[in-house]
Amino acid sequence: MEDVTTEAAPTTAPPFFDVHIFVCCNRRPDGHPRGSCATRGSEALRDYMKARVKEAKIPHARVNMAGCLDRCEEGPTIVVYPEGVWYRYASEADIDEIVDSHLVNGRVVERLRI
Amino acid sequence: MEDVTTEAAPTTAPPFFDVHIFVCCNRRPDGHPRGSCATRGSEALRDYMKARVKEAKIPHARVNMAGCLDRCEEGPTIVVYPEGVWYRYASEADIDEIVDSHLVNGRVVERLRI
Repeated sequence: MEDVTTEAAPTTAPPFFDVHIFVCCNRRPDGHPRGSCATRGSEALRDYMKARVKEAKIPHARVNMAGCLDRCEEGPTIVVYPEGVWYRYASEADIDEIVDSHLVNGRVVERLRI
Repeated sequence: MEDVTTEAAPTTAPPFFDVHIFVCCNRRPDGHPRGSCATRGSEALRDYMKARVKEAKIPHARVNMAGCLDRCEEGPTIVVYPEGVWYRYASEADIDEIVDSHLVNGRVVERLRI
């Protein structure tokens, strides 16, 4: 049945989101050796990024909560799909730079890239 | 400073994950008009998919918990990046088909695609 229900490769349906940003909001207990993004402030900065993306009226963009992205030691982290560009960030200013440079103007922020 | 800290387009760094699957695990209260993926069983099926992907030894793949992916009415849903292929699923058999057909053999499962 495979030739009926499947096809050879990912196809050309338009993307549901043009920019899909996943913000790690995993929280480990205080003192955990790997740390976690939420204990480093990711939840508030996720909310900030959502507001900034909305304000910038970036079409078909979504800022999404995610569980552990498994780059804890480098966090807090986000990943921007479909490009697969990863960032660490530490402040609202970092989020502003990612939104304004990358999401609005298409320029990756190399200083925050991981 | 933009020419120092940024560059013109997403660049060629190898992807951290070759396949990054986000499983909506958002839970709304019972009776909410939009429903939610978790109330339709996504959490247990996420765990099942994680186990199946591990068992299949798919390299550089990660099954990730996600918050609301905003396609609640079609859920439970997952999205596979960087391809941006979306699925709805309802059972372990559906997950098996996505893992075996798409993730292992590169064939999108059209009957589950949304």
